[in-house]
Amino acid sequence: MKVVIVGNSGHKNYVLDAFSPAFSIEGVAPGVEGESMDSLMGDPRIDCPLYADWHALLDRVNPDLVVNNTWYGRAAAVTAESLKRGIHVFAEKPLAGSLEELDEIRRLWRKGSAVLGGMFGISYSAPFVTLREYLKSEGIGRLRMINARKSYKLGERPEFYKHRDTYTGTIPWVGSHGVDWILRYSGKRILEGYALHSTEENCGHGDLELTALCSYLLEDGIQASLSIDYCRPGAASTHGDDRLRLAGTEGVLEIREGRVFLIDSGEEREMPLLPAESVFSSFLQACLSTESGRIWGDHALSVSEICLKSRDAADGCRRFTL
Amino acid sequence: MKVVIVGNSGHKNYVLDAFSPAFSIEGVAPGVEGESMDSLMGDPRIDCPLYADWHALLDRVNPDLVVNNTWYGRAAAVTAESLKRGIHVFAEKPLAGSLEELDEIRRLWRKGSAVLGGMFGISYSAPFVTLREYLKSEGIGRLRMINARKSYKLGERPEFYKHRDTYTGTIPWVGSHGVDWILRYSGKRILEGYALHSTEENCGHGDLELTALCSYLLEDGIQASLSIDYCRPGAASTHGDDRLRLAGTEGVLEIREGRVFLIDSGEEREMPLLPAESVFSSFLQACLSTESGRIWGDHALSVSEICLKSRDAADGCRRFTL
Repeated sequence: MKVVIVGNSGHKNYVLDAFSPAFSIEGVAPGVEGESMDSLMGDPRIDCPLYADWHALLDRVNPDLVVNNTWYGRAAAVTAESLKRGIHVFAEKPLAGSLEELDEIRRLWRKGSAVLGGMFGISYSAPFVTLREYLKSEGIGRLRMINARKSYKLGERPEFYKHRDTYTGTIPWVGSHGVDWILRYSGKRILEGYALHSTEENCGHGDLELTALCSYLLEDGIQASLSIDYCRPGAASTHGDDRLRLAGTEGVLEIREGRVFLIDSGEEREMPLLPAESVFSSFLQACLSTESGRIWGDHALSVSEICLKSRDAADGCRRFTL
Repeated sequence: MKVVIVGNSGHKNYVLDAFSPAFSIEGVAPGVEGESMDSLMGDPRIDCPLYADWHALLDRVNPDLVVNNTWYGRAAAVTAESLKRGIHVFAEKPLAGSLEELDEIRRLWRKGSAVLGGMFGISYSAPFVTLREYLKSEGIGRLRMINARKSYKLGERPEFYKHRDTYTGTIPWVGSHGVDWILRYSGKRILEGYALHSTEENCGHGDLELTALCSYLLEDGIQASLSIDYCRPGAASTHGDDRLRLAGTEGVLEIREGRVFLIDSGEEREMPLLPAESVFSSFLQACLSTESGRIWGDHALSVSEICLKSRDAADGCRRFTL
């Protein structure tokens, strides 16, 4: 499969770490003027031409798959153009910076047969794979409550994080992981929600919201909280602190510090971790299957919609319905 | 100080464990018809008469302080009558089952000089005392995010838990601890909120909500989540799983499993625990001081108001403002 990479601002390693004979990277280009491609071109795993313009890249290479990795708020144009051309897209999340852009992407995706997927790589890491498989095999009864949390170090972020227009917002960019987990592990739809966010104390990061908090009501009366912040101190041992807790009628599963803990009718115990998987390898598989291909697109569109509606609600009246 | 106990349905041990020459228990009575006083009268630390009626108890003993420990949804009448008589009240939370009852209690409390306090005993346990003192001495910069969680075993609860009228609800009864923490450790007011709850899967417990979720916006743009559930499996090592996380601009403090963890500019570390304190002994001290006495009443009334407004919002339009 012929792959190209547009942009150098997100999780390119999901692709580079998945190198296999199943695909080859045939070209790269910035997604917006001024986006530095240096760290990508300097990666020893990259051995392909750099194009100055991503339209030219698509024209010349005519790829099967675009990795869309540009500034989050500018990624929608690349995705839309790729879908128009029938090219599969593996995109940073959110898929768009506004609901209008997202509607356009949904329309193009529905019209064609290209597969559209989001970079929800955390759900392919060892603890999340372990949780997923336990839910499939044993389960925790009827799910009642989900608590998700993302906490990152702020550090000094590139300029494009400081503008809503290019960053999209903390709920869409960071929170999309939490919304991914909530939808993925519940298997239910979100019916309504409430969201707060604040840019205070963001150390000169402009529009970037330092904190955000979302509550969701899902089908079946399931409730879900999502707390997001950039308050993780610089001295902490890891960049991110990802937490997820699922409470059901027959047990409670919790991920913290990269470990998985279970309480059910037996002893409280830590679960042995299953191996991590590759989100990009899984996406490549999905590109070969009509059915799972549609699931990827539906999921990425749903997560993006929830995130953008949450962000817009946090800006305004706070509560929203779907 | 002459103390009487009305009812036998809440945290009587806060009082019994605090025995000292500073007070003596001179009588007990049920708070409602049908409330069993057996376990209280059978306690070796109790050596006083049992009255059939709490009005008669107040008439005969003329106490300085009433411990109000009856069914949560029926406690307001005892508190109101005691305040009318100028008697200090140490009460189960919430202070009332409805906002109308709470208004009446506030009115009586403002008119007199009796001290009114809530049974927020968890905030006097070792990890919470440790957290409180660290916030006082070192702090974590400017507080931005609070995440509170309560998870209890459901088990088989007495009949009065199964009716809103006598139980008040899961947000008021269980959630009041979380609201206590949020107000106490932020020192800020809650401006608005959003709440959800559900009785589904409550194993025949009638009106009792198995799960509830609240989001609050505080002064200064601080956000707070409060997740409550009765999903803790019976096999778990402790009855309750209390979690609290405070994220500020200079550090993150977290209580879990009875321990306190800190991340700041130094290494991530567990903090040595300070000794637990007694909520009832502290309340007795407050009864001797006009200033701290008013703080106790203000706090218990605020927590109760937030909880009742959250519960009512969860029943209806979900979002509320203060």
